Amino acid sequence: MADIIRAIQYGCGPIGVAVGSLAARRGDIELVGALDVDPEKVGRDLGALREDGEDLGVIVSDDAVALFAATSPDIVFHTTGSSFPGIFGQLEGIIGAGVNIVSTCEELSFPWLTEPDLTGKLDSIAREGGVTVLGTGINPGFLMDLWPLAMTAPCQDIRHVRGVRIQDASPRRLPFQVKIGASRTPDEFQQLVDEGTLRHVGLPESVAMIAGALGWELDDIQESIEPVMAEEPVSSPLMSVEAGQAAGVKQIGRGLIEGREVINLEFQAYIGAPDPYDAVYVTGTPNMEVILKGGMHGDIGTAAVTVNAARRVVEAPPGFVTMKDLPPVVCPAD
Amino acid sequence: MADIIRAIQYGCGPIGVAVGSLAARRGDIELVGALDVDPEKVGRDLGALREDGEDLGVIVSDDAVALFAATSPDIVFHTTGSSFPGIFGQLEGIIGAGVNIVSTCEELSFPWLTEPDLTGKLDSIAREGGVTVLGTGINPGFLMDLWPLAMTAPCQDIRHVRGVRIQDASPRRLPFQVKIGASRTPDEFQQLVDEGTLRHVGLPESVAMIAGALGWELDDIQESIEPVMAEEPVSSPLMSVEAGQAAGVKQIGRGLIEGREVINLEFQAYIGAPDPYDAVYVTGTPNMEVILKGGMHGDIGTAAVTVNAARRVVEAPPGFVTMKDLPPVVCPAD
Repeated sequence: MADIIRAIQYGCGPIGVAVGSLAARRGDIELVGALDVDPEKVGRDLGALREDGEDLGVIVSDDAVALFAATSPDIVFHTTGSSFPGIFGQLEGIIGAGVNIVSTCEELSFPWLTEPDLTGKLDSIAREGGVTVLGTGINPGFLMDLWPLAMTAPCQDIRHVRGVRIQDASPRRLPFQVKIGASRTPDEFQQLVDEGTLRHVGLPESVAMIAGALGWELDDIQESIEPVMAEEPVSSPLMSVEAGQAAGVKQIGRGLIEGREVINLEFQAYIGAPDPYDAVYVTGTPNMEVILKGGMHGDIGTAAVTVNAARRVVEAPPGFVTMKDLPPVVCPAD
Repeated sequence: MADIIRAIQYGCGPIGVAVGSLAARRGDIELVGALDVDPEKVGRDLGALREDGEDLGVIVSDDAVALFAATSPDIVFHTTGSSFPGIFGQLEGIIGAGVNIVSTCEELSFPWLTEPDLTGKLDSIAREGGVTVLGTGINPGFLMDLWPLAMTAPCQDIRHVRGVRIQDASPRRLPFQVKIGASRTPDEFQQLVDEGTLRHVGLPESVAMIAGALGWELDDIQESIEPVMAEEPVSSPLMSVEAGQAAGVKQIGRGLIEGREVINLEFQAYIGAPDPYDAVYVTGTPNMEVILKGGMHGDIGTAAVTVNAARRVVEAPPGFVTMKDLPPVVCPAD
């Protein structure tokens, strides 16, 4: 491969540790530092933050300015939050240090939807700073937006795009199982939905990215959230669900033009899903049905897409970009 | 959509007529001319060259210089031949007129493999001329190179990439059925293979593109060609095949490093294939199995990829590019 990319892991939660650990073992990347504000993590080895993790020789720091100055990184893997306005200040600081960014912030996968002004500002400061900023991940970022888009290349015309992601939550980390409402009663589930805490973030962003790339000017993006109820008891290694409780969540994002649906993204994640898969369906000339058998493990995929995107981001012209703007992100061979 | 792209169809055989006809009915493209040297075609409407075709209002000319001067096209859809050295002079002429090119020339999908010096020269004159040149199509160009590459994005590491394309040749045009050796005896089939006329062009190029993008430095690319024998009589609307004759072709392209296979592309096209499909298999973390059910119709797909690539090519920086260098080619919505 080409030159080694010097990377810093920014945010050392479960996804951050997965991203940093992958980066550390890749031949095309050198992990030169890690950042977190949590006093429980600062001073410890990044690898040791995972229960079964081995030391990576990278100690978590809470001093970004000093770390950037000492290590001259090419890129930051940023994994701290789902809300774009919530992380904007962090991005400003990294850009100010002249460092490129790949972020797993879900709203940053296509922030033109909810925060066009702030996105324009981000693009401006990235251009001024001479760095490139990308929001990505397995979903949003690949399975329900870039992949469906890429599969339209052999189509002569398209009338409808549908993405389906059916996940068995059993092998996922505990925060994920909690996040999707597993073991909640229907009332508890609805309360969490009403509070806004039970929600996979990113479906409207994926709908908007698809529409933006294909040139559909949507009048409306709709989103629904409901429980997938356990009809009999199911369990994961981390959690038991009784019959009548929620086993997980079903969310649908839709894009409409004058009342006509042109995009439908269906996301299901629940404990005990018998037949997980990912799929893309295109209605057009020709119709297409593309199946990823067994589905993609979300945590593995998010770490992979994030790390794999590093080279494309380092090579891209300065500014804010989304996955639809970059040449294909690939996994380099060792 | 953005500005209308002004296009010329260069080469008016079956694929050229398909590409030009698609371009003519698309809202994002204006077909402003067509070129061919065949006196049987010059002066006729491009659409009328297809048996069931309707006039497109575009008359075939044999004077490229005059047509370029009169129409100021943004792009040429070039569909005249499979051999890169054989079409180089045509590309030079188009570049000299300052026009971008999307070509279906199979060897041009990744000409660094067989003609690195000529490819370097093409890149130079394209840069000097301020135009972008792309070689693409459904295969090579998408199904057995770009699609497998794009599917590695969610992988943490990869050890082997396999692509499979099983086509039923029955609904394809007659020249295709002839090209794959349908209704030949085994001896006739082998003779055509030995003469080099019975061969799907592009498998080694696809192997090389995958290896180049992933960073595998291959020591060897191997290709095998053998008949798929009809065990009982089969027929298409255009041809009958007796038992014991070839129903079509099976070709395998392989990429090796120190004797170890890392890429395997299997192409089968024969009359009566009972279960056509396209597939990508990645061995790595995780393993992936991706199926395009029913397979992709080659002529529909080649016309689509060629026309859909126009915008990316017009927007790309000058030079010679392959599909792995461009942001995703998509089918714009009407």
